[in-house]
Amino acid sequence: MSDGTMRWAGRGTEPEATRKFYAVIPAGGIGSRLWPLSRADAPKFLHDLTGSGQTLLKETWDRLAPINGEDRVMVVCGRAHRAAVEDQLPTLQDHNVVLESEGKDSSAAIGLAAAILEHREPGVIIGSFAADHVIGDVRRFRRAVIEATAVADAGYIATIGIIPSEPAIGFGYIEGGEKLDLPGTTSAYVATRFVEKPDLDTAREYVESGRYMWNAGMFIAKASVLLEEMAKTKPALVEGLRKLAAGWDGPDRGVLVDQIWPGLEKIAIDYSVAEPAAAAGRLAVVEGDFSWDDVGDFASIAKLQSGGRGSDLAILGERARVLADSSSGIVVTDSDRLITLIGVENIVVVDTKDALLVTTSEHAQRVKSVVDALKLSGRTDVL
Amino acid sequence: MSDGTMRWAGRGTEPEATRKFYAVIPAGGIGSRLWPLSRADAPKFLHDLTGSGQTLLKETWDRLAPINGEDRVMVVCGRAHRAAVEDQLPTLQDHNVVLESEGKDSSAAIGLAAAILEHREPGVIIGSFAADHVIGDVRRFRRAVIEATAVADAGYIATIGIIPSEPAIGFGYIEGGEKLDLPGTTSAYVATRFVEKPDLDTAREYVESGRYMWNAGMFIAKASVLLEEMAKTKPALVEGLRKLAAGWDGPDRGVLVDQIWPGLEKIAIDYSVAEPAAAAGRLAVVEGDFSWDDVGDFASIAKLQSGGRGSDLAILGERARVLADSSSGIVVTDSDRLITLIGVENIVVVDTKDALLVTTSEHAQRVKSVVDALKLSGRTDVL
Repeated sequence: MSDGTMRWAGRGTEPEATRKFYAVIPAGGIGSRLWPLSRADAPKFLHDLTGSGQTLLKETWDRLAPINGEDRVMVVCGRAHRAAVEDQLPTLQDHNVVLESEGKDSSAAIGLAAAILEHREPGVIIGSFAADHVIGDVRRFRRAVIEATAVADAGYIATIGIIPSEPAIGFGYIEGGEKLDLPGTTSAYVATRFVEKPDLDTAREYVESGRYMWNAGMFIAKASVLLEEMAKTKPALVEGLRKLAAGWDGPDRGVLVDQIWPGLEKIAIDYSVAEPAAAAGRLAVVEGDFSWDDVGDFASIAKLQSGGRGSDLAILGERARVLADSSSGIVVTDSDRLITLIGVENIVVVDTKDALLVTTSEHAQRVKSVVDALKLSGRTDVL
Repeated sequence: MSDGTMRWAGRGTEPEATRKFYAVIPAGGIGSRLWPLSRADAPKFLHDLTGSGQTLLKETWDRLAPINGEDRVMVVCGRAHRAAVEDQLPTLQDHNVVLESEGKDSSAAIGLAAAILEHREPGVIIGSFAADHVIGDVRRFRRAVIEATAVADAGYIATIGIIPSEPAIGFGYIEGGEKLDLPGTTSAYVATRFVEKPDLDTAREYVESGRYMWNAGMFIAKASVLLEEMAKTKPALVEGLRKLAAGWDGPDRGVLVDQIWPGLEKIAIDYSVAEPAAAAGRLAVVEGDFSWDDVGDFASIAKLQSGGRGSDLAILGERARVLADSSSGIVVTDSDRLITLIGVENIVVVDTKDALLVTTSEHAQRVKSVVDALKLSGRTDVL
């Protein structure tokens, strides 16, 4: 497999549909649960959270660019992050950078990319993939994406559902129904239901049933189909996006953005598209048999670093100096200060220049509430 | 009670013996269990560990100086700490500063002070008190010292035993025997035994018996008696100390120090004097009915700060900024970095410029082993 355009080496010949494929990377969220590492000016996707030496954004790019060429990868990000994104992705082309003047959630971000691409290239198939997830087996990931383009080409909104390795309670699930008999597909199903994060008993039932997959937030569809589905629930939003897209490549982009963007509704694409489309039978799910994690909190990072064993001490930081005596968990540091741990289990220590966090894996999800408290109390100097 | 010389307001008239009293403060140990706060160049006694705004050394001085005047308080410290000590104690007189060229443990430090003072003022009664302990009720402390001078005047080596408030396993104990019937004393006993830190069951027995007190390392005796007792077990040591003392106030001090000091035996005064004297019936113990702590580790500090409740979060640091969500323990910081704790119990976080410690109260004693490991591995930059 080359680093450039991928030659199809999958379960048959490369589907025709893959030539229409355009990857979209919405690089939006800050990752509040990863504070004080993630900040407004250094969001999650700009960090190396796996110790690979690459940021999550760069790894996402490297996974997607070979599928149909790096000229067919678009990034949607905030204006404040433009320089950092371009620094990370030196071959990202100017016309593939979509800047948001303010965050408007995933429906607007992905919808705008869809509208721009559909306007430029009618019939385009887009695939949207978060900038800050971690994926283990890149070949299998790409095969699933290519299979999903075939499903999308048949008119479905396709998603990739991750075959669960455990009854995780931190992810949403997708229920797979009847198998789809489409050319170029072997593991595509009608998606009958999207469910939010379940409790442990429910998660166990899901995993045992063999019908449920993790929702990794990956959507692959014809841009036109995605916008039509979105227009059914959010017509004003799609009207705004189409107007913006029509003028995007002309001289009025700035005026249109100022006129339209601030008034667009903020809503996650799960609610505007995925759930209603599933209810209407227009959503398909392709099985993804690769490891995946949304790296939602420091407990996830600790787990990823320790290879799922959860018993050792993970250390992230190029200059890290850690001395630990019978301790487990994770240390993240951006300095060379000596960090000493004695007898602390499942500890989370995040050491940055102006803020230090000490918690445990068990409470890692609560980091977000601290960020909220800091916002409320006006201590934005550390956010 | 004035800040200057104390007027006796105790259990009778001021004993004659108090006029012979000279306080000695050996300011020696670094306090390895309080690393990374305590360092070679910033030992425990130079820190404010109670949040009082005063260093432990200054608090020790303020407890002792009123007993017989601040011209009768001697400090024994390392050469490297002279400037810091004099900065803390601006009224400390030059002839009351005894500098050690290297640490030689408490027998040599207290013995040298005894020999110098005895040489200058035959018949002097010295009282030795660590520079880095915490005492609650200063009036009661002073009364106990004054009572101990009366006991010392009768020829005993007196110690002050703290009436235990709980079966602590971190302290040594002194067993009190027959009551002494001496003028000016009401709660002095023959000390029959010194015991090292006991296990919990033994500590419980001790406390229930009502006969045992905590060994706070306070010794009050005629200098001549102290040296005679020490000479019984360590004659060469005392011979060296007496030679040094004879020339201390003359032109040969430097030469004598270089000749004698490096060869002196390193031994704690508990072994050279207290235990043998107790075994021989020459040691007395005066009850100390005041709160006392040797602030041996961060767990002690946490306990002192929380008033013994052990359930809250103690914070030490003038510029501390701490945000805590259902956490308990102690945070010590010398910066204004934001420190955030979430769901950690009995945690110990010590945040300094070049080193960070995270442990729990339970493991606070193990901090010393980390310091030992750092020494062995040559990482002396943070010691």
